[in-house]
Amino acid sequence: MRAGVLNAGKIHVRDDVPDPVPGPGEVLVEVAACGICGSDLHFAQHGAEMLALGTQIEGMARPSRRELDLDRDVYMGHEFAGRVLEAGPDTTARPAGTLVTAFPILPRANGDIDTIVYSNTIHGGYGEKLLLAAPLLLEVPNGLPAHHAALTEPMAVGLHAVVRSGIEAGQRAVVVGCGPVGLAVIAALRVRGVESIVAADFSTARRTLAATMGATEVVDPRQETVWDRAGAATPLVVFEAVGVPGVLDDIMRCAPARSRVVVVGVCMGADTVHPYFGISKELSVDFVLGYTPEEFAASLRSIAEGEIDVAPLVTARVGLDRLSWAFDALGDPEEHCKIVVEP
Amino acid sequence: MRAGVLNAGKIHVRDDVPDPVPGPGEVLVEVAACGICGSDLHFAQHGAEMLALGTQIEGMARPSRRELDLDRDVYMGHEFAGRVLEAGPDTTARPAGTLVTAFPILPRANGDIDTIVYSNTIHGGYGEKLLLAAPLLLEVPNGLPAHHAALTEPMAVGLHAVVRSGIEAGQRAVVVGCGPVGLAVIAALRVRGVESIVAADFSTARRTLAATMGATEVVDPRQETVWDRAGAATPLVVFEAVGVPGVLDDIMRCAPARSRVVVVGVCMGADTVHPYFGISKELSVDFVLGYTPEEFAASLRSIAEGEIDVAPLVTARVGLDRLSWAFDALGDPEEHCKIVVEP
Repeated sequence: MRAGVLNAGKIHVRDDVPDPVPGPGEVLVEVAACGICGSDLHFAQHGAEMLALGTQIEGMARPSRRELDLDRDVYMGHEFAGRVLEAGPDTTARPAGTLVTAFPILPRANGDIDTIVYSNTIHGGYGEKLLLAAPLLLEVPNGLPAHHAALTEPMAVGLHAVVRSGIEAGQRAVVVGCGPVGLAVIAALRVRGVESIVAADFSTARRTLAATMGATEVVDPRQETVWDRAGAATPLVVFEAVGVPGVLDDIMRCAPARSRVVVVGVCMGADTVHPYFGISKELSVDFVLGYTPEEFAASLRSIAEGEIDVAPLVTARVGLDRLSWAFDALGDPEEHCKIVVEP
Repeated sequence: MRAGVLNAGKIHVRDDVPDPVPGPGEVLVEVAACGICGSDLHFAQHGAEMLALGTQIEGMARPSRRELDLDRDVYMGHEFAGRVLEAGPDTTARPAGTLVTAFPILPRANGDIDTIVYSNTIHGGYGEKLLLAAPLLLEVPNGLPAHHAALTEPMAVGLHAVVRSGIEAGQRAVVVGCGPVGLAVIAALRVRGVESIVAADFSTARRTLAATMGATEVVDPRQETVWDRAGAATPLVVFEAVGVPGVLDDIMRCAPARSRVVVVGVCMGADTVHPYFGISKELSVDFVLGYTPEEFAASLRSIAEGEIDVAPLVTARVGLDRLSWAFDALGDPEEHCKIVVEP
């Protein structure tokens, strides 16, 4: 089969990847659509640093990607939707042709749980076929097209951040950075009933998308600050969805006392902060990642039932042959937000 | 009257400070005891940097100490207990001679609220007399001596950190750093019923004090880590009570997934952290400061009723003439923990 792979920092498409074969409990799925995640762009450029930083971390189970070899082909693509082809031995699955998506993990026969994100062996959504765990399959309802169902995953990231923030409808939210993650946060805030959502991004196109997704005010940081708009009088819930050094410290310096800062943008390198800014205002900083299976399912439901319209986020749909082009094109926030690959 | 003052980074004792005169709502108090706070040592050395950093902070009311002139005499001392001398005009206060302490703020006639911490004009506890707000006076009960009542304030800092952490009795706590703040945290954890308190400090004497105050295990970081002792399997509540650069990042690197980190040590400078450590384990970092009036009162009650025995913390009692000596002596954690000045 054909599949896009990362090798030594470059995206290639191979024609000679062996078809995956479903084992017990697994289902072979033909990928219909797979969104390109910003973290994949970042991993393509900084994968070695990310792996090195990962090895320093203690206090958690070792993720399987620590064994990743960046000089071999790496399969990627975790924002997928596809159609059931066949179930593995002794496995019950939905009928062939059913459009499905799934929480992107793959429990293996030996008890390991692999994530479908970066792997030398586990296929991802940037290929014609992949294996999913039969119990995790979610049927895509309401005739939702695959290229919208594929946005279940990034929308779940936003939902998780909002759930973890504990924000209530009467509180004011600030979203710093309106890439796909910030936009997903805005959509989830809207679903939760938050009535004041001030969003900031340097890009005009992204600010327009922010308003479309539900931001009540948008700010160009070159013109004014989110703090001017959101006010300093009461604590805010601030979502850091940029993930570049310096942003967190600036938020800590400027946010009103007792604000909660939710870090959902992934800053991979070292960052400088002034703890005194946090101390003097008693800020809380919550670092969040991913989503639960329940949040993933809720995200699919929100999209399928029209609570969240993801259509404006999809700025291009391309075949596998344009995967490498798409990785480059996503560098321009004025032109693109979410590019969906349809292998 | 005599009062210790900070001037150009040095502690002096002046004999010619005019006696403060109580206005309406104020009470003149003769200081019986005042503990020396680590933040005073830090302010003596790094006051200019602290003020400069303070001016950068937005999102909060400007504290009055921004107008502080470090080249003039600065009054300090906020861990005080004293005896009522006289009330101001039209002011009702407890009888002269009553031993009291108070939440260290002083509301002024013009509506400002000054803090009794660093000031060119508001007297502190390193002097023979100071003004307190009549409504805030707390009578010291149960015959508690002044040099113990003076520890109400630092114990309240620990109580506040523990309250803000939300820790429950069944959770495990880690306290990194066993200076007066870390020890106050340990005491408050004990009062709250926390049964597992792992404390770490390089100083043998401080580890001994930690065990005395209620730590269930003490760790010398040169020999082993708190993480070895506390375990990586379940989330911990970790109190950062050191406040020097690098400690927060190391905690974020090592703490178990989903741990809550409470930053109670005041790191004044820039610090380097890796947000990825926090993100990959979904850590929460709560910066805390000070205490509420209710926590201050609860702290006095805990000491007076014997829930917290502060006696072991007091390693010296000195007169004003040894204030400067005491500031130096507190640099050695093997010799001293809390030195109480008795003007």
